[in-house]
Amino acid sequence: MRIAVDAMGGDHAPQAIVEGILMAEKEFSDVEFLLYGDEKQINPLLGDKVNQTNIKVIHTDEKITSDDEPVRAIRSKKTASMVLAARAVKEGEADALFSAGNTGALLTAGLLIIGRIKGIDRPGLMPVLPVIGKDDQQFVFMDVGANADSKPENIHQFGILGSYYAKFVLGIENPRVALLNNGSEAGKGSELSKKAYELLEGDDSLHYIGNIEARELLTGDADVIVTDGFTGNAVLKTIEGTALSLMKLMKSSIMNGSAKAKIGGLMVKGALSEVKDIMDYSKHGGAVLFGLRAPVVKTHGSADKTAVFYTIKQIRKILASSVIDDLVHHFEIQKENE
Amino acid sequence: MRIAVDAMGGDHAPQAIVEGILMAEKEFSDVEFLLYGDEKQINPLLGDKVNQTNIKVIHTDEKITSDDEPVRAIRSKKTASMVLAARAVKEGEADALFSAGNTGALLTAGLLIIGRIKGIDRPGLMPVLPVIGKDDQQFVFMDVGANADSKPENIHQFGILGSYYAKFVLGIENPRVALLNNGSEAGKGSELSKKAYELLEGDDSLHYIGNIEARELLTGDADVIVTDGFTGNAVLKTIEGTALSLMKLMKSSIMNGSAKAKIGGLMVKGALSEVKDIMDYSKHGGAVLFGLRAPVVKTHGSADKTAVFYTIKQIRKILASSVIDDLVHHFEIQKENE
Repeated sequence: MRIAVDAMGGDHAPQAIVEGILMAEKEFSDVEFLLYGDEKQINPLLGDKVNQTNIKVIHTDEKITSDDEPVRAIRSKKTASMVLAARAVKEGEADALFSAGNTGALLTAGLLIIGRIKGIDRPGLMPVLPVIGKDDQQFVFMDVGANADSKPENIHQFGILGSYYAKFVLGIENPRVALLNNGSEAGKGSELSKKAYELLEGDDSLHYIGNIEARELLTGDADVIVTDGFTGNAVLKTIEGTALSLMKLMKSSIMNGSAKAKIGGLMVKGALSEVKDIMDYSKHGGAVLFGLRAPVVKTHGSADKTAVFYTIKQIRKILASSVIDDLVHHFEIQKENE
Repeated sequence: MRIAVDAMGGDHAPQAIVEGILMAEKEFSDVEFLLYGDEKQINPLLGDKVNQTNIKVIHTDEKITSDDEPVRAIRSKKTASMVLAARAVKEGEADALFSAGNTGALLTAGLLIIGRIKGIDRPGLMPVLPVIGKDDQQFVFMDVGANADSKPENIHQFGILGSYYAKFVLGIENPRVALLNNGSEAGKGSELSKKAYELLEGDDSLHYIGNIEARELLTGDADVIVTDGFTGNAVLKTIEGTALSLMKLMKSSIMNGSAKAKIGGLMVKGALSEVKDIMDYSKHGGAVLFGLRAPVVKTHGSADKTAVFYTIKQIRKILASSVIDDLVHHFEIQKENE
């Protein structure tokens, strides 16, 4: 399998990206990496690996920055590292696209260059999130912002997409799909969520378990949680913000406390960093722009080499599964039955 | 000032309610309490205060439960404690309504019995939230779920409502109003939030500072944060769920850790409970159903006597301010200018 890497995307690019790729290259001998970016910066980081056959550097001077307006950047910066990487996937030279760069631009590149699976109207951005307190349990949540507005039909498709991912990539036999809503009872919700509820409930291919409230999001009661892109974006950022604020508060409470609290703080350092680790969902991989003809995976702009490594591990798992082909098949059959 | 109390609403009613009222009664000699509910249960809790002139018990056998369907309950249970309390406000026998009961029913009672301020289309539910890490700073956030669907005009009015509250009740001179959105730049967002942005920006009476992302919600960058009722509900519940999950995880990490971690855990207990205190926003008062002709304030169903006390303190502050009259005036003038 071949992964096209936007080596210039992200706050610590290309260093963190290349170092992460080197970690992954050691572990996964079946992956070939195509690194798009400035060879003057990348080659020194590769060191003696520069001539290895499983790592290829494709030079370009141009890159997309976090300040670039997405659509304009993708259209005008035709030789940007992200654009070239996306084009490699489109042309079959690579099987998946990885970037830590401008999210909006990556979404645009995915949609305009790689393209949607036939039958999917709106791909969604889908992170894999940890279930708090249950070590090896994860769930997927979408859409966290590929779309600013979603229709009931889009949310229904997010349920199908998430369900396929949970089954074929996470290995969950019969994934429980839930709709994020403002009450747990059927009949609750906005006009949008009520209509989405009906579509999800009417789809026999899904193991739909009904509404879930945001309070229960991290408890593991569902394997796939779907909502519109605006709400999903707000909810994901609220999780991040709340966790960050609380960890900060905890630290400052300990540091500004008594001498006893400070010593105690040192003694619970392990526990604190365990909590931080669990919330650091970069270890669970990146967010997949799902619904495209190939996996496009985004990790945090601030990603370090470890986050890059885990995201490559995730992409490898997606490619090793048949999930994209299965989805293509699902929507072909649906089309035939219409 | 006279507060009508639904003594039968909430998980620990009437005990927690009556005990909280007794705490408040000691502190606030200028408040008269009208307790609606079962006198056989309430009187013994009042003990020797049963004959005090500042506490009056109005007996009723009927009450609304958390399982009741809101609109049906308000219409059919005409002598329920919540309904009688709302009616007392409507008829001028009390100045404000307090309940820890069924939120939907309270919203309905507020709308149908007490009624909206003229010119306000949709009242919103507005909690006062803590700014993490800044002890005495608070902000208001609305709508957290009085409405399942909001229009741009509603969100604009939430900005006006929140601004008045922040100024006249929280004492913030020139409250900064922000719109919760999926990006910080102008021009971002859903169709709804883009239109709300324009209305807020065009209102010279507001100190509008633009978009804020959910990640920055608890940082104190804005004094009033507005959004539609569906997103606000999801965001508030996400804060609660994330904080709860993290505190649990922290505890179990410490308890399942080494002996050292356990001892350390005892030593940081103070810091942990400080964090818990800050997140326990019942101490910041209840959520105000704001935009009605009188204050209607809801505290958590699980509220204990302390939460009841703080909510009464908040209601007293609202009544002592001129905020409702000022709002009535604001919308009268607006009407005249149209």
